[in-house]
Amino acid sequence: MLSRSIIQHIKSLQQKKFREKSGEFIVEGPKLVDELLKSNFIVKRILATEDWFANMPVLKNTDFEKIAVTPKELERISSLKTPNRVLALVEIPKNSTEPLVLSDDFYLMLDGLHDPGNLGTIIRSADWYGISKIVCSEDTVEFVNPKVVQATMGSIFRVEIFYTDLEACLDKLEPDFPVYGTFMDGKNIYTESFAEKGVIIIGSESHGISPLIERKVKIRLNIPTNNSMAESLIASVAAAICCSEIKRSHLKKI
Amino acid sequence: MLSRSIIQHIKSLQQKKFREKSGEFIVEGPKLVDELLKSNFIVKRILATEDWFANMPVLKNTDFEKIAVTPKELERISSLKTPNRVLALVEIPKNSTEPLVLSDDFYLMLDGLHDPGNLGTIIRSADWYGISKIVCSEDTVEFVNPKVVQATMGSIFRVEIFYTDLEACLDKLEPDFPVYGTFMDGKNIYTESFAEKGVIIIGSESHGISPLIERKVKIRLNIPTNNSMAESLIASVAAAICCSEIKRSHLKKI
Repeated sequence: MLSRSIIQHIKSLQQKKFREKSGEFIVEGPKLVDELLKSNFIVKRILATEDWFANMPVLKNTDFEKIAVTPKELERISSLKTPNRVLALVEIPKNSTEPLVLSDDFYLMLDGLHDPGNLGTIIRSADWYGISKIVCSEDTVEFVNPKVVQATMGSIFRVEIFYTDLEACLDKLEPDFPVYGTFMDGKNIYTESFAEKGVIIIGSESHGISPLIERKVKIRLNIPTNNSMAESLIASVAAAICCSEIKRSHLKKI
Repeated sequence: MLSRSIIQHIKSLQQKKFREKSGEFIVEGPKLVDELLKSNFIVKRILATEDWFANMPVLKNTDFEKIAVTPKELERISSLKTPNRVLALVEIPKNSTEPLVLSDDFYLMLDGLHDPGNLGTIIRSADWYGISKIVCSEDTVEFVNPKVVQATMGSIFRVEIFYTDLEACLDKLEPDFPVYGTFMDGKNIYTESFAEKGVIIIGSESHGISPLIERKVKIRLNIPTNNSMAESLIASVAAAICCSEIKRSHLKKI
């Protein structure tokens, strides 16, 4: 039987302050836990039904506590509408807040994204297009938020996410490092070419790229519209179009 | 004061069966109602605070019942976390279920999309890229679902949405009408060109394009990935990449 303290601990991890305090977050469902166990993330505990443990995938890392639960017990601790056989408690990676120096790679940079679904979708698109690192402003929603984790469909275990002061991070760049951003008045993204390395900044849902960060942008791009009435693309779609154009630009050079 | 029957009627419109029965749906918040009043949608009633009515935008159509409510009353009838000054009851357009013949235009076709956020995002992207008609399978989530309406950010009033039997719709096409779909084994979407007219089919979140509809696809496309571990793009992003590539393909020809 589940102890009251474990139930309380797991429920508390729905809240940011308790995730920060304990350094743990939750991953739910066989598909996501399967991806988790293939990753380098440190698993602390797995609570699952007997049948999940009986068919547990071959594990990279089995050094965690295993707790068998009944479907009814899982229902009590799960945050999903339809709890699904397994729930893992996972250590929040420490490198996510270490200082990051951008060098020979292509990065996404997120300036104040607040919607968990948007962040989850961006991580999933970045994974698809081979962008392996995302740099977030400190006020961007945490990637260990349960809604973000679920929306990534497992991509969260393959894309590294960093939280840092964006201005300081951009100030540390080599002077010729390309810094892209999308604006209403930029150059047509479909006719521009992307360098082999660089960073592309995606603004927040309601305010776009903030003025301090906008000053650091060297190449202003625009995703052209066919419709003067349409106001904007959702941030997650704008980010995907940027990833797609980077990919296409690099394809042409092969 | 609001009568109990109005409160009940408005609350009932959160559910599909009551929307179908009454032929009405809800639009909330000044931004969306503003877009609504610029459109040809038929507004039945507007419930708003005194200050909203005092600053009401210039209207195309003012032939609707106006009911002043207090912020507290609005809270009782609103489905938003933060109710926002105005709520409109709107007639569901009748053409959305009329038979549609695809001809000289580019269409999106959605095969069984169930997530309201995905549909809302797709309508918003279609609006941005000038795709003015979306054809949905009968089991696709209704576009008048409140979550869809809110996610479109007003694009719902500019993009026409139809619900029909997709197979029958595709069977009525001229033999040379281009029918595109995205699959894991298709041709690279970045190197293909799109015709001036056509329809591109987006599959459901969990099952992709259904087998019956897959048989009607004439040009199989693939959105290439850089990462063999990544399983798929979210349907709303796949749709946006398709819209973006159609736009880019047509740009090249100008």
